[in-house]
Formats: sequence, structure tokens, C-alpha cells
Amino acid sequence: MSAERLRSVDAYWRAANYLTAGQIYLMDNPLLRTPLERQHLKPRPLGHWGTSPGLNFIYAHLNRAIIDHDLDAMYVIGPGHGGPALFANAWLEGNYTRTRPDIARDGHGMATLFREFSFPGGVPSHVAPEVPGSIHEGGELGYSLAHAYGAALDNPNLLVACVIGDGEAETGPLAASWHSNKFINAATDGAVLPILHLNGYKIANPAVLARITDGELDCLLRGYGHHPIYVGGDDPQQLHQDMAAALSRAVAMISEIQNAARTASSPLPRPQWPMIVLRTPKGWTGPRQVDGLPVEGTWRSHQVPIADVRTDPQHRRQFVEWLYSYHPDELFDEMGCPTTLVTDNIPAPERQMGANPNANGGLLLTPLHLPAFKEFAVSTVRPGDATAEPTRTLGRYLCEVMVRNACYRNFRLFGPDETASNRLGDVYDVTEKQWNAAVLPTDEHLAHDGRVLEVLSEHLCQGWLEGYLLTGRHGLLNSYEAFAHVVDSMVNQHAKWLKVSRQLPWRAPIASLNYLITSHVWRQDHNGFSHQDPGFIDHVANKRAEIARIYLPPDANTLLSVAAHCLASRDYINVIVAGKNDAPVWLTAEQAALHCARGADIFEWASTDAGSVPDVVLACAGDVPTTEVLAAVSILRNRLPKLKIRVVNVVDLFRLQSDTQHSHGMTDAEYDTLFTTDRPVIFAYHGYPSLIHRLTYRRRNHQHLHVRGYLEEGATTTPFDMLVLNKMDRFQLVIDTIDLTPRLDGPGASALRADMLATQDRHRDWIRTYGEDMPEVTDWRWDPNTE
Amino acid sequence: MSAERLRSVDAYWRAANYLTAGQIYLMDNPLLRTPLERQHLKPRPLGHWGTSPGLNFIYAHLNRAIIDHDLDAMYVIGPGHGGPALFANAWLEGNYTRTRPDIARDGHGMATLFREFSFPGGVPSHVAPEVPGSIHEGGELGYSLAHAYGAALDNPNLLVACVIGDGEAETGPLAASWHSNKFINAATDGAVLPILHLNGYKIANPAVLARITDGELDCLLRGYGHHPIYVGGDDPQQLHQDMAAALSRAVAMISEIQNAARTASSPLPRPQWPMIVLRTPKGWTGPRQVDGLPVEGTWRSHQVPIADVRTDPQHRRQFVEWLYSYHPDELFDEMGCPTTLVTDNIPAPERQMGANPNANGGLLLTPLHLPAFKEFAVSTVRPGDATAEPTRTLGRYLCEVMVRNACYRNFRLFGPDETASNRLGDVYDVTEKQWNAAVLPTDEHLAHDGRVLEVLSEHLCQGWLEGYLLTGRHGLLNSYEAFAHVVDSMVNQHAKWLKVSRQLPWRAPIASLNYLITSHVWRQDHNGFSHQDPGFIDHVANKRAEIARIYLPPDANTLLSVAAHCLASRDYINVIVAGKNDAPVWLTAEQAALHCARGADIFEWASTDAGSVPDVVLACAGDVPTTEVLAAVSILRNRLPKLKIRVVNVVDLFRLQSDTQHSHGMTDAEYDTLFTTDRPVIFAYHGYPSLIHRLTYRRRNHQHLHVRGYLEEGATTTPFDMLVLNKMDRFQLVIDTIDLTPRLDGPGASALRADMLATQDRHRDWIRTYGEDMPEVTDWRWDPNTE
Repeated sequence: MSAERLRSVDAYWRAANYLTAGQIYLMDNPLLRTPLERQHLKPRPLGHWGTSPGLNFIYAHLNRAIIDHDLDAMYVIGPGHGGPALFANAWLEGNYTRTRPDIARDGHGMATLFREFSFPGGVPSHVAPEVPGSIHEGGELGYSLAHAYGAALDNPNLLVACVIGDGEAETGPLAASWHSNKFINAATDGAVLPILHLNGYKIANPAVLARITDGELDCLLRGYGHHPIYVGGDDPQQLHQDMAAALSRAVAMISEIQNAARTASSPLPRPQWPMIVLRTPKGWTGPRQVDGLPVEGTWRSHQVPIADVRTDPQHRRQFVEWLYSYHPDELFDEMGCPTTLVTDNIPAPERQMGANPNANGGLLLTPLHLPAFKEFAVSTVRPGDATAEPTRTLGRYLCEVMVRNACYRNFRLFGPDETASNRLGDVYDVTEKQWNAAVLPTDEHLAHDGRVLEVLSEHLCQGWLEGYLLTGRHGLLNSYEAFAHVVDSMVNQHAKWLKVSRQLPWRAPIASLNYLITSHVWRQDHNGFSHQDPGFIDHVANKRAEIARIYLPPDANTLLSVAAHCLASRDYINVIVAGKNDAPVWLTAEQAALHCARGADIFEWASTDAGSVPDVVLACAGDVPTTEVLAAVSILRNRLPKLKIRVVNVVDLFRLQSDTQHSHGMTDAEYDTLFTTDRPVIFAYHGYPSLIHRLTYRRRNHQHLHVRGYLEEGATTTPFDMLVLNKMDRFQLVIDTIDLTPRLDGPGASALRADMLATQDRHRDWIRTYGEDMPEVTDWRWDPNTE
Repeated sequence: MSAERLRSVDAYWRAANYLTAGQIYLMDNPLLRTPLERQHLKPRPLGHWGTSPGLNFIYAHLNRAIIDHDLDAMYVIGPGHGGPALFANAWLEGNYTRTRPDIARDGHGMATLFREFSFPGGVPSHVAPEVPGSIHEGGELGYSLAHAYGAALDNPNLLVACVIGDGEAETGPLAASWHSNKFINAATDGAVLPILHLNGYKIANPAVLARITDGELDCLLRGYGHHPIYVGGDDPQQLHQDMAAALSRAVAMISEIQNAARTASSPLPRPQWPMIVLRTPKGWTGPRQVDGLPVEGTWRSHQVPIADVRTDPQHRRQFVEWLYSYHPDELFDEMGCPTTLVTDNIPAPERQMGANPNANGGLLLTPLHLPAFKEFAVSTVRPGDATAEPTRTLGRYLCEVMVRNACYRNFRLFGPDETASNRLGDVYDVTEKQWNAAVLPTDEHLAHDGRVLEVLSEHLCQGWLEGYLLTGRHGLLNSYEAFAHVVDSMVNQHAKWLKVSRQLPWRAPIASLNYLITSHVWRQDHNGFSHQDPGFIDHVANKRAEIARIYLPPDANTLLSVAAHCLASRDYINVIVAGKNDAPVWLTAEQAALHCARGADIFEWASTDAGSVPDVVLACAGDVPTTEVLAAVSILRNRLPKLKIRVVNVVDLFRLQSDTQHSHGMTDAEYDTLFTTDRPVIFAYHGYPSLIHRLTYRRRNHQHLHVRGYLEEGATTTPFDMLVLNKMDRFQLVIDTIDLTPRLDGPGASALRADMLATQDRHRDWIRTYGEDMPEVTDWRWDPNTE
């Protein structure tokens, strides 16, 4: 790097550092051109200084490399606590002004930039949706590298520079993410450049990777499959040269890997991708010592390195000296605009990281070409006359989605080694599992290029998918229901990202995060208690109404309808809960479409109320509960033919909530029409019963609502015994109906009740003898002639 | 290993494999001494064969090593799907008979062992609490190594052999767990021996670590700080010799490391602990091919390797050949008891892994010596006249707990780099943070031996703590509230473990899993939206009533009382939510003890109903909500002195639920006494309002219950603005009171209402100007003279 280039990179870095410190402390007088007064200082300085100079250093050098090598680059900042650093860079580029025209790139704008940072009504202290160029909030640590790989998939010309803090590196999700390089295809995907930033400390402790030997660290990173390039020290001039050389070398290695892969006639062995290890002091260039205690290079620089600047004159002097140490007069002109010395290190607008359209993926979003789901529907004439494995039916639809969008390379399926187990395996008729580790002759469906990504880590699946969506593509994650909880906290963070992004006019909508939750609680009888947990729905139900959508399609055809709807939607988190086991198909394609559009509706073909007010409502949400309700109704119709029953099925769970709370919610009038105002409602629900109460407690008829669901009773047993253990079996539902329906106390009802109890007992004895369910329940079919 | 020893080890292994396959398939005729008939076979064979022969191989060799080296060893089985293998070994040892006297170690017992496995009314298909010797359910993968390290802490003579499957190795928590060796102290802790079992496949895919080069794998494991010892192949005779040598070598290395550390005059550098990499075929010794497709050595052996054995005569023949290949007549005598050839490889009873008391930790549990919490209470005369940082107050109590139990070495504090941030740092007056990676002069409180473990991974903290508790010790995990969700799925699995364990008479109760959830939603104003999430409570509230306990102490003294109670409790998951910021102390120590014992009670000193029926109830749960309610009451008492107000505070959240649903629940009569049957109840709650509704929807006065809480509105702002954004600020509570209390519509009320709205506006303007809350709210103190 020439002396001139070095000077510009250094000036850019100093400018960013100045702006970072300014944001943390200053409300006014941003260029310190008048003596610093108390009222110029924030009463409550907030922000994380420690990581920021390193982030600015990396940003300055990425800019240099972008200019010199004409890179299409974006960043992911794992140490996202360093928000002021990224706001500073976005402002220097002019991209902050682009998204916030009220904040100009001059002294006035700088004052607002400073004031608004971590200030009421302003912007957050972390890298957040408000930062142009970011797809990643670093508030909760662990997901940067997975996000980076998700962004790189199918973006062959993109370089994703991913900064990983040594704190974040201790988390599980990050530790697992290193192996993402076994799944990336050098020919068709972009490159991720991990930059492990070792500044030695977390909040209050040293970081593990900063305190193992150099030899161990090198081994570890090579063991992850990387070629590490080391840069370290605290002398800026030397480090500028070293970092520039390291980045150029990394870029050259990536180029070589990609060229080789893209010109080879057959797939090449997995390459050793370069990565950079940058070791710099925490709080670098900040105050060395404060009150006699070391700050730079220690955890004391983690947040605000000098306290009480407003009130302590000595501290205030030290703060001013610190800011002057960057020589702001070289960096900002009279008007407060960055000087050319600084701006020389800013790439052309279309190459700036803060303007990379991949980081505002909605801009690049090509809608999926979705086939009509009806073409894939299971043919059925009468309810229940056909059966299907719902997820297998969906798998065939997903095949066609893959085929129709193959040329766009913008749709992927993600799963934690469960795609086949979840019976979506038909997708392997049209694509492969992407994989570039070793392959043996016995393997199937592994290839360097494929639309399915499978790794035994829900964290990685979710992280990759989020990165893929945030850069403007589409996808679906399939998971066993119980283990979706592994990513609870990632769901939270994505929901928060969506909520804030939707409030920013410049962020374009992205494809929804779609979950297919299957291998669910009622059919994990064979795997036992550890695999039985329907609580993921409850977790998502806590998210904002404008973000969360939960669907419980009762059969294969409604699953198709729901999935097609979700794949076309934007900015939601869609949770679809559906079974994989063979089960009755209740609705034709036409009926399914209508039913899903309504979200909750009467199954008139199953009801006996003939449009009048029923004696009892049997409601259901979920495939297994629907079957049980219909089986119970079948018994009731046969044995108590005069009973007026209404069957209500709920596909879209938030229909139950009030329209004042959720845009999908029903009005009270609609609710009353479906559920009556005074008749008993026996509701068989897929998950924990409390969720149904929580959604309906304000409804007029809530006092008559009796919910059956999962009571956290599980074991390795039969599917029907799971229902019996949790009191949601058809016999129990008949008993509930008899017990709760007023005036249903004749001898017929009493006899039926006794029969139901006897049948439950008989089932219990049967399974303990034969190890499988009674034919009476496994062979049961809805019989319309019971009427 | 001599030929004789080898023969015994091999026989033991074959016996275990025979018993494993038998459990998966057979209901009767366990020794195949009569021709195999349809009715001898399970109708629905269930279980995971693939991993089991490897687990049996490891178990057989651990037995050999225990005998030869007189080891005190226990196991943790990561591939816990291999349940039948561990049941087989427990049965061979006689430990299954010890816990299940109805299942003898003979042919009759074997028949029951087989029949009950994965059978209705029987035992689960995975390693579960039912397996003597296990502390770990392998149903959800990722936590084995962390559990193993937790077990080894403070158990200097214990060897914990931890089998890690190559599938599990892909998960985040497992990937992070390797670095646990930076926290173990060779002088005072036991040893963990990781055994990475590479059998190549997961459910349907190859495993990453089995498909990287040998060089990369070696680098990776050395990078983790281990000394790997490799054993691999498929020839049992060779592998027996190799595995025996590897284990003996590992045991010798561990011994050497421990001896050195225990005789050194000053702490030694971190050692390179040995580990074993065992590469064997998946489904080893099972059917090579079925119907022409390879099974042994592929993912096809993952579960049941031969299907339709009941109906397909060719498959049945193959099954019988497979079982005969183990030569059962050498292994079991006439009565079906294991022959001495087999039992020669079983250690003496006190050394058997299935009988290791550490794996039934309640047996070893020494109750904590707990100081009286009152000695640490904040001195206060009148409500609110003193302030304290609740968690700092607790920190001083924890110091004393550490001191009093120091000689027992059975209490530890775990935290994800947040112990100081959570203001528990006073514990460093009496102990250190345990750490054996490099230390620099600027570091503080790091030592090889210490009671605090800090790593930036909630997964590791939780996994270590679980392992520590399950082996009979005590602990507390402190975490930022929002990030407790990281371990949602671990909480689920621990809750399931506790539920099942409590039903097993031979499993002794263990210390509760205690969470101190702090840095909570209302005071993460400075960290912003990503740090604001109170949903962990909701997650735990879904767990079984006999397991889950949730406490929201309103001040420092009640926090002490609650914490002392939780530390003495058994078999619960206790969630304590408390702030770290300076806040009023409402109750004296005496009052706090009484209040916590009641769980929910009237704050009579704040109420104006004087024992009569109030006009309105203001209820609160959580420290910040309590302060807001009292501030609102303060305003109401002043401005509407005739209003009869009752203040109810809830510490123990499940008091709200019915006594029929939770053992802490109130009867309806109690509830009605506190909350009235017809007066408006304005409830300020720490978390999502829906939880309060969900707990109370059946109560008589539920229709008048109006809950304020977190509405998922957050930002980087001031503490009071967090309340305003979520409509739980004192001014809003006053408005709610005016709006909801019947006949409260006089001019005084109207004027007050207008004042409140104006004050909210004034606050909004104030914070946007000054960046901090108005003195009116920050300086507010409860003034009893407002009466």
C-alpha cells in the first residue's frame, strides 16, 4: 500500500473512530470547535466503545480492498454491540443520509447523528435494521457466521465479510457455524470471509480463543477447514500494511478458488477458504488509563471508557484529548463534511457496503413462481374417503416450486437431517443435498450443487435461512416440532428485526420465514417423551401480531393451500404445523382453499345442527385433533342421533383472537356466530390448552369453552395412547360432550358414557398386550352414513 | 490384553449386542430356544440399532478398564437414541434388576426386558431416567459433553466417559462444549474422557466430522486442546486390542495430568487432556445387506435394520441368523443368566457404571448450609425509605453461602459473562472465576480453582449446571432475561427428566435448577430492543405444575427470601426474576419472609380500603410493576383521597392459578378474598399480559381483570419510557383506574386524568430534549403521608 493510500485509509479510520466516540458522548458541538460545555455532553453516555475501533479498522480496510479489487462486498458484524462504529461508516459513505435525508453529511448532520445515537426517540446502540448495509443485529450473539453463509448462497459474485468477536465465538451456534464451509459451493455460491477479531475480552472476562496458544488456535481454524491469515499488534501504521496485505491475499485466494471451481470440468475437492485473524487491543486508540487503571486493552473499555465526563473536569479534559488525538481538523472541513483525505477511501456508490442491495434484500426479491396448489391436491370426493401423508403431499408441491424457480436459484429447503424423515424426500427427484465434504459410494443425493441443505443443527438451518431471506430469497425450514425450541431465541431476534424493518420506509419487504413443524407431539409416540413438545407455537404466539402467523391445517389439501399462501407472503414468521403420517383427507382442493381463506369455519358436512343453534360445538385445530373430533362426532351421531352438533375447525390460529388484537382476528359477531354465545364448546387443540384460553378469554362464550390438548404427558407408546394419556381421545371427547351439554342425561347418554369408559379401558389392556393400537381406532374411517 | 481377557470382553460385547437387538424385536422367546413365531415378535419394532453396537463396544471396554485400573467411572451417552444398548448393559450388570426387582437377570427377566422396551406401559427407546447409571437423555442432541463436565466438577476421583456421536457433534451446544477443558481444574475436579464416535451417518446423511480429512480432524481436536487417540476399523479382534490400549493410555495420561497438578506447588499450565476417536461402522455386526441394499455401515441401519420380520419369512430368517451370530449359547446359561465368560467383564458392584452413585446424585446430596437471609436484609423501617440493588444484595448472601459450604465444594454460580454485570460481583470477595487458559496481569479474579464459572454460552452454563445438579450438588445460573431463551429447549429436557425421575422410587431428589433472571426487560432500555424479552417465564409456565416455580420478588428483601427458599428446594425448576438496579425496598426482612410464604398478599400499608371491600384493586407482580403501582397509588391517594384502593402483590406467580392445577395455587375463596368478586383489578405485570389471563381465566372476577405488561414495544430509550411505550407507567395506571372504576367520574377524576395525559406528554418531550427521565419520576419516593 502506497504511503498515500495508507494515509487515506488511516484518515478514514480516524474519522470513523472520532464519529464513534462522538456518538457515545456528545449531544452537540460535534466538532469541538467551541469549548466543551456540560450541555454538549449526553447525561447518560451509552454505547460500546471496546469493539468499535477494530470494526472501524476492518471497515476502512474492506473499503480499500473494494476499491482496489472492485469487489461486490457486504458485511455481517457479529460484535453488533459496536453500533456507533457502523452508524459512523454509513454516515461517512453518505448512505445514512440516503436513508435519513434529515441527517446530512455535514456538521449539522453530524450533530444529529451524535445526538440520536442511543437516545430516546433515536436509534439503538447496536447494529440494527436502522443501519444501512446490515442484515444482522448483534445484540444477541451467535448467529453472524450462519447469516453470512446464508447471504452468500446463490450469490456467486458476492463477498460476505463476517466479523466474529472472540466473545461470540464462545457461543454454541457460532462454534457450529464454522463447518458451514462444508456446504458452500465455490462454483455457484459467493464467498464468506470470516474475520475473527480477537480483542481479548468480553464484558468482564477474557475470551477463550484469545487465551489459547497460537498453535492451538491455528490448529482449530485449520481443523474447521480454513486457511488462517494472521494480523496483529497495536501499531496502526504496521497494522495498516499488514491488514491490507492480508485482505488482498484473502481476496486473491478466494478468486483462485472460485476460478478453479468455475472452470473445472468436474467438481473439485473442498477448498481451504481463507480467513483472517485480527488481534488488536480492546478499545484501541481510546484512553490508555483512566484514574490510574488500565482501560485500553482491557475489559474496562467494553462500554463507555471514561465515566462522569459531564461532572468530572479531569475526565472531561481526557475525553477532549482523546477526541483531538484523531486530528478532526484533518478529517472534517469547515462545514463538517469529510475531507477528500477521508472520502478517498470510500468506494463508488454502487460498491459501498452501506448501499449493497443484498443487505436490503427486498429490493432484489423475485417473487416465487408458485404452481397452483390444487394440481397437487389429493383427489377426494367425500370427506375422509382418501388418505395421504400431508408432508409427502407437500413434498411433491415443493418439487414443482424447485423446478419452476430453478433458473432463479432463489428457493431452498433447510432441515436438521430430517427432510427425509419428515417425508419431504420427493424433492430429491428434482434436486440434491448440497454438500462438499467427502462422499462415499453408498451415499445418496449428495452433490456440490443442490437446493436442500441438511445439517444436524437447527441453529445453522435457521441462521442460513435468515441470511438467505434477508438478502432477498425464499425458503422453508422443516423441523421436528419438539426441537424447534432450539431456535426460540433466534425467532425472537428475527421477529424484532422484522418489526423494526417494517417501520423503516427504505427497507423493502422480504420473504417470510416459513417453518414446517412436523413429526409433531401426537406422532412421536415411538420416540418418547423427549420428542413430545408442542410449545413452539406458544413461543411464536408471543410475537407481535403484525409478524406472527400460525397455521394448523387439518389435512394434506389444507396444508398445500396454507403452504402456497405462506411462500407468497412477506415479512411474516409463518409456523405451519402438520403431520407426516398417513391420515384422512377431509376437504377437496376447492374446499381447502375456501376453508383456509376463512381461517376457521363450520364443517357443515360433519355437523347435525342444520343451520340452527346447536346443542354443543365440537371445535378442533390441528390434524390429529380434527380426526379425533370427527371420530367423536361419528360416535355421537350414531348413538345420540337427536343431538345437534356443530363442528368448527380452525386452521389459522389467530382467527380466534379479537380483530382488535390481530389483523386475522374475528370480530365478536363472527366469533359468536361460529361458537355460539351460550352452548358448550369442546375444543380439541394440538398444543397446550392454555393458548386457546389465552386467545379467547374475552369472548362472550368463553365460560363454556372446554379445551383438550397436550398435558405434558408422554411416553414411548402408541399414537392413540398419546391421546388417551392427554385426555384428548375420541372417547374422552364423547364423555366431555355428555358431561357438558345441558339436558343430555337420558339413558342413552349414560350408556354411551359407560361404553366410552369401557372402551378406554379395553384399549389400555389391548396395547399392553399387543403393543399396538386396537383395530377399532386404527381402522376407523369417517362414515357419513352414521347420520 | 490377554486372549482370555479379550474373549471375555468380546463375549460381554456380544451379549450386549444380542440383548440390544432382542429388545428392538422380541416380545417373547428371548433366547430363541424354540422356533421363532410371529407372536414372539413385536408388531411394531422400535429402537435405534445403528449407534448401539458402538455404545456396547465402548461400555465393554470401559468395564475392562474399570476392572484393570480400579476406576471410579460413570458415563454420559450423547447418542442417547441407543437406549436398548444401555438397558442391555444395566441388565447385564444386575443394576436393572436392582431398580426393577421384577426384572430378574435370567431368561424370565430377559423376556420382560425385551417386551417392555419401547412398548406401551414400558420404558422409552432412548437413554432415559429409567436407565441406572445415566444422567443424560440423548433424545435431543447437543448437551452430552457439557453434562459430563458438570458431573466432573469437584469430583476429583471421578472419570466421566462421554460418548459424542458424530451427529450430535454438528450441534451448536456440543461444538461449544469442547472448550469446557479451559475451565476444568486437574487438581480439584475429575476428568472427562470424550469418546468421539464416528460411525459416519446421522438419520439420513453423512456426518460432517466423519467426512473431513484425518488431518483436519486431528487439527480440530488438538485445536480444542485435546490429545486425540485414534481407534478404527471393523475387525472386532483388532479393535478390541486397539480400544483396550487406547483406553489404558488415556487413563494413564489422565492419571499423569492429575498427579502432576495435585503434587505441584503452584498451578501448572493447562494440560492436553486425552480423548478417543472411535471409528466403527454404523450398525456394526448387524445385517450387512437387506434386500440387496447395504445396511451395515450406512444410514439404513439407523433404526430398525430389517423390516417386516413378522410377515416376511426371508427377513425373519435373516433376523434369526443375525441373533445367532452372537452365539447366545456361549453367553447365557440354561436359565438365561449371563455366563461367567460374560460376567468376568463386569466390575465389582461398587465400581459398576450402572451403580455409580454420582449418576443418582440425590443419594450423595449434602444439603446446603444456608445462612438466615434476614442477616443480609436491607434495613428498612417504612416501605420505600431505603433503596438497594436487589441482585447486589443477593450477591452478599451468596458470598456467605459460598463460605459456609466451601469445605463441601458443592455449590457453584454459573453465568454467561454476566455475573459482574448482573451485580453479583461481591462473590469475588470470597472466591474466584475458575479458568485455566492464559492469564494476563490485567485480569482479575481468575484462578484454577473458583466457585464461579463464566463463559459466553448460556448452553454451556446450563449444561454444566445440570450435570452438577444431577450428580448431587447445588447451583444457580444468572442470566440476562432476554437471552435465557437460548436454553429454552434445554429447560424442556431437564423438566422432562425431573418429571420422570420423580416417578422412579429409586431416583433420589436432586437440588433444583435455579435461575436468577435479571438485567430484565424494563431495565434494558440502554441495550435496546434485542435485549428486551420477558418470555422465558411463559416458556417455563408451560412445564408441569409439579416442576415449575416462578417468583417475582418486588424488592431486595423478598429476593433474599425467595432465593434462600429456592436453594433449599429439590426437583424443581425455579425461575427468579429480579432487577439489578437501585430500587426501593418495600418490606422489612420479617415482612418479606411472611409475604413470600404467602406468595401473594395485600400490601395493607399501601391500601386505603381499611379491610372493607375496595373500589378498585391495583395488583402487581415484578419489581418494576410494583414500583409503578405504588407510584400510581401515591397519586391516587393524594388526588382522590376517598377512593378505596387495595394493593395486592404477587411474588409466587402460580398462586394465581387454581389449587386444582398447581400445588401453589389459591382456592377460589382465597382468590376472591384478595381480588374481590366484582371490583376492577388493574394488574401491572412484569411480562406478557396474556400469562396472567391464562392463569386466572377461570376465576370469578376475571371479567374485571385488566392486565398491563410488556407489549413487545422496545427501543434504546430511558427506563421510564419503556413503561410509557408499553402503557404500564404510573400515569397510565392512574388513567386505567379512573376509566375502569365505576362511578369515578367526578371533576376531580377528570382533572386528574387530564393531568396524567399531560404528564405523559411532558415526559416524552423531556426525554427527547434531555435524554434522561424527568426528575419527577426518577426521584419519586413512596410517601406514606399522602394518605
